[in-house]
Amino acid sequence: MFRSDAEVESHHPQGSPAILSDCDEGVLIELIVSWLGEVNPPSPLGIGDDCALFPARADGDFLISCDSLILGKHFTPDLPAEKAGAKLVLRNLSDIAAMGGVPSYATISILCGARLEIDWLAQFYKGMRSVAKDYALKIVGGDFSQLPSNQFQAVMTIIGTAQNPILRHNAALEDSIYVTGQLGGSIAEKHYNFRPHISVGQWLAQNGYASSMVDSTDGLAKELHCLLAPKQAVSIDLNAIPISEAAHQQSSGNRAFALKKAFCDGEDYELLFALPHTIEPADFESEWREAFPKIQLSRIGTIVEQTGTARLLDSSDLSPLPWNRGFDHFKQ
Amino acid sequence: MFRSDAEVESHHPQGSPAILSDCDEGVLIELIVSWLGEVNPPSPLGIGDDCALFPARADGDFLISCDSLILGKHFTPDLPAEKAGAKLVLRNLSDIAAMGGVPSYATISILCGARLEIDWLAQFYKGMRSVAKDYALKIVGGDFSQLPSNQFQAVMTIIGTAQNPILRHNAALEDSIYVTGQLGGSIAEKHYNFRPHISVGQWLAQNGYASSMVDSTDGLAKELHCLLAPKQAVSIDLNAIPISEAAHQQSSGNRAFALKKAFCDGEDYELLFALPHTIEPADFESEWREAFPKIQLSRIGTIVEQTGTARLLDSSDLSPLPWNRGFDHFKQ
Repeated sequence: MFRSDAEVESHHPQGSPAILSDCDEGVLIELIVSWLGEVNPPSPLGIGDDCALFPARADGDFLISCDSLILGKHFTPDLPAEKAGAKLVLRNLSDIAAMGGVPSYATISILCGARLEIDWLAQFYKGMRSVAKDYALKIVGGDFSQLPSNQFQAVMTIIGTAQNPILRHNAALEDSIYVTGQLGGSIAEKHYNFRPHISVGQWLAQNGYASSMVDSTDGLAKELHCLLAPKQAVSIDLNAIPISEAAHQQSSGNRAFALKKAFCDGEDYELLFALPHTIEPADFESEWREAFPKIQLSRIGTIVEQTGTARLLDSSDLSPLPWNRGFDHFKQ
Repeated sequence: MFRSDAEVESHHPQGSPAILSDCDEGVLIELIVSWLGEVNPPSPLGIGDDCALFPARADGDFLISCDSLILGKHFTPDLPAEKAGAKLVLRNLSDIAAMGGVPSYATISILCGARLEIDWLAQFYKGMRSVAKDYALKIVGGDFSQLPSNQFQAVMTIIGTAQNPILRHNAALEDSIYVTGQLGGSIAEKHYNFRPHISVGQWLAQNGYASSMVDSTDGLAKELHCLLAPKQAVSIDLNAIPISEAAHQQSSGNRAFALKKAFCDGEDYELLFALPHTIEPADFESEWREAFPKIQLSRIGTIVEQTGTARLLDSSDLSPLPWNRGFDHFKQ
């Protein structure tokens, strides 16, 4: 994705630019506008002014969040650029899903080395565009900054709307805990190839089916804590944890290890939520099967009172579970 | 700002963390919330959920923009961290000013090495908080990502509102061109120590005093093009260019060189705008002196028809000016 010294020296740009430093800013902006196509509205609603404009509206709230994508951390150079671009948008959409929101606008800041290949960048934007189009997200602004070496980092900020946003730390005692899909082993493929549960989030919000919700980006063990209000714990049915096929394969059939992966691996991008205890789980599950027949749903536990220091408990004997943390971004 | 190998090895964290990798994510978020204080409202209006919420409103438009701050590019390690943090917010505010908008919300993404000193980071946030408070900006969300080496990059996305946003590329023939403050030589100090012209921008917007406006971040030579509609040029009175004292000093008294600096240096963060030709310049200037007695205003040119390829012309003989580009971010 970056040209070497020898390639740069032997290259004499003619016609279309090969690497970023062949482009002046005007050319780069023109390229980006062409790459984004219909997901970037004409200026001033999109790229081209000091800010992009978007209309105010009278109902509901706006949501705002940001998430990054870093070469060497969130993807490796062998991942096709299109999948890397798609992943950045998918990650951000997952945050909107976790609030029960509707995605609307995004900006993209790219920080990278000057030898980045334009073809690679075009594919990265193609991936962003494709996902943005699927979810009716407009990419309306951005910023490019040069880094001294062959690095690539992208930060997306996303705006959405929500009439009934679903917060974290808002579960009540006896609420049931559910998770969508399967968990663990995302490194095999799922970390860049997933569908954020935007429709599910909206459906849960509209119907009052979630008292508390989060997306499982840093692993179940860590994210479960996000559902809880103070003095609450979760009693978990380990047999109900939906361990993914990838986690089983990566554990060579060792179930304890596969279970640990389901709790501690990151980047599942599933929804984890608490169903209010005033709603009968069987009724909810029947509504679910009608609305989302193809999306797996697992009832993995119940909110209970916290009596000791542990907040994740094995429902069979209420002993503390050994996995209390998922992925931590700075801890070494 | 980063701890060395020896310092990391000899350090045994006890009590408050010294570097980022001493903090788990929960501790880091608690620190950030304390550092931001009143400019970060309680969750879900601020940091702490998948997204931050902000209320929808029925009048005007929202503005969105993003701008980055990179160690080694926009600041050096000898700049106090507080000034670096302040600069990031000031840069973003300048984009809101250039639309005649009111700043409202921002998110902050930080990408950096794990050995970043917590004290440095605290000062960086102190600088952001101080500027945010001055301009009633709320910092409502963010994201932290680890980079493999001693790097520091920050991306801010800012949201504002505008009832009458002032666009680029919107001047008309015979409009007068004005610039605030002084230009050139910002490297001496101004690049991190400036006041974005938020009140000026709003006043110009409310009174219909600007047909086209931009902030001068990449130098007058480049930014003047942003005022112009197709087939327009600017006839410039070189004697009216407000060359800064710093630009004169850096040019050792050579006026031609100082003038070039005023045209081509970046990071002035002044407002450059076109006064509609339907308004008498003398009347406008008199209103200006009453509203902003302490802010220098220079009438530097007039919009004319473009006849050749040049778009920046010397008003004395309509010859093309030699400076057509300011700072370009990737061109080598």
